[in-house]
Amino acid sequence: MISQKWSKLIRSLQQKKYRKAEQLFFVEGEKAVLELLASTWQVEAVFGTEVFLQRYPLQLKTAALVQQCSADELVKVGTFTSNDAALAVVKMPPQTDFVAHSHGFVLVLDQINDPGNLGTIIRVADWYGIKHIVCSPDTTDCYNPKVIAAAKGSFLRVTLHYQPLAPLLTAATLPVFGAYLGGDSIHQLRLQHSGGYVVLGNEANGISAELESLIGRRITIPAFGGAESLNVGIATAIICDNLARLQTTQ
Amino acid sequence: MISQKWSKLIRSLQQKKYRKAEQLFFVEGEKAVLELLASTWQVEAVFGTEVFLQRYPLQLKTAALVQQCSADELVKVGTFTSNDAALAVVKMPPQTDFVAHSHGFVLVLDQINDPGNLGTIIRVADWYGIKHIVCSPDTTDCYNPKVIAAAKGSFLRVTLHYQPLAPLLTAATLPVFGAYLGGDSIHQLRLQHSGGYVVLGNEANGISAELESLIGRRITIPAFGGAESLNVGIATAIICDNLARLQTTQ
Repeated sequence: MISQKWSKLIRSLQQKKYRKAEQLFFVEGEKAVLELLASTWQVEAVFGTEVFLQRYPLQLKTAALVQQCSADELVKVGTFTSNDAALAVVKMPPQTDFVAHSHGFVLVLDQINDPGNLGTIIRVADWYGIKHIVCSPDTTDCYNPKVIAAAKGSFLRVTLHYQPLAPLLTAATLPVFGAYLGGDSIHQLRLQHSGGYVVLGNEANGISAELESLIGRRITIPAFGGAESLNVGIATAIICDNLARLQTTQ
Repeated sequence: MISQKWSKLIRSLQQKKYRKAEQLFFVEGEKAVLELLASTWQVEAVFGTEVFLQRYPLQLKTAALVQQCSADELVKVGTFTSNDAALAVVKMPPQTDFVAHSHGFVLVLDQINDPGNLGTIIRVADWYGIKHIVCSPDTTDCYNPKVIAAAKGSFLRVTLHYQPLAPLLTAATLPVFGAYLGGDSIHQLRLQHSGGYVVLGNEANGISAELESLIGRRITIPAFGGAESLNVGIATAIICDNLARLQTTQ
């Protein structure tokens, strides 16, 4: 059973202000909890079904507290509509600012609002071996349960930094690319450096005006049909794929 | 006001069996309804807020019935959590089987379950100028309101066909590509024909065993990091982008 105290805490962690106050968040589902337990992240508690606890005794050794509960209880305290495995309460790692780098690509998110989009972007970054994502302070919180669910364990391998973007891009020594409608086609792109910043803008408004002058090169995914735009998660994936291809085949 | 009769009908159209029986579905939100009204699709009714109806009198001329209602009513009968514009009830176009083609790419979906994924795939296809998507009969229904919402008007420009996939692929005269983990890298691909079939498998199980022997070439999105997989909508976008690039630059 999940005690009253833990239930209340976990439910409160659905809200950013309580996550911030407690410096805790939660992870739901079998695969994500197992990936978490195999990581160096500090797991405060795991609530698991009988089957889950019996199946993974070794993996659970790294958790400070392990308690058995029902699938119904997991659904009640969490955000999944079904969860017959586990939920873990996790300590947030300390937040650090990103500082200038000399190789590799970094994603820069300018006010991404949708948690599903942010989760997708984290998963895509991980697929392409991108280790850092710098988010504007008003980008949606990466410990939102919807972000964690969409990121599918990739949040463990990609470091997110929340900080003002203008100072970072002003100090950049590597190229700064910005995703726009109406820039240079990424199919024609040639890279001078094997690294840089890729700025992706807000779902509705794109890259904010204050950053425009800091974008060195506007890049665009060429369109061949009638759709007006692509979702920002999709756009990130296509851009990352082109950059990865250029880095390895150019 | 939306009458009792229409309210009941619209709500019933959230379920596939009633959509099928009535041969109707609905479209929500300002942009999608406007795109719909500009198309040749048969619009049975538009329910709009006062502002919407006053703003678009000309566009509304093609609708058989136009009625004013409140934003609250739109939310009550539809699936959006907010909708201060309109909802349209639309006649399904007749369903036809896809027959062999001689150029261009066609997407083939083998049991895609998630409506959001199907909607994303339709939008991506439209971006890349792909006109046809062939779905296995057990792929989620393309008139599901979540598909329509995720497709963002692109459902008007991409034709979906529901039919058994094996006979189609058996009769194919153009190459049949299948998305697998562990196939040939799409970054190394060269095209012999400017067209073909691209088969995408189920979210959990991939391409079904019965289709395996019909796949001429297994293709893969190369991975550079730690993520185990990509969402099927993301994978479709990356594959379509590579095919479009090869068609225009090869």
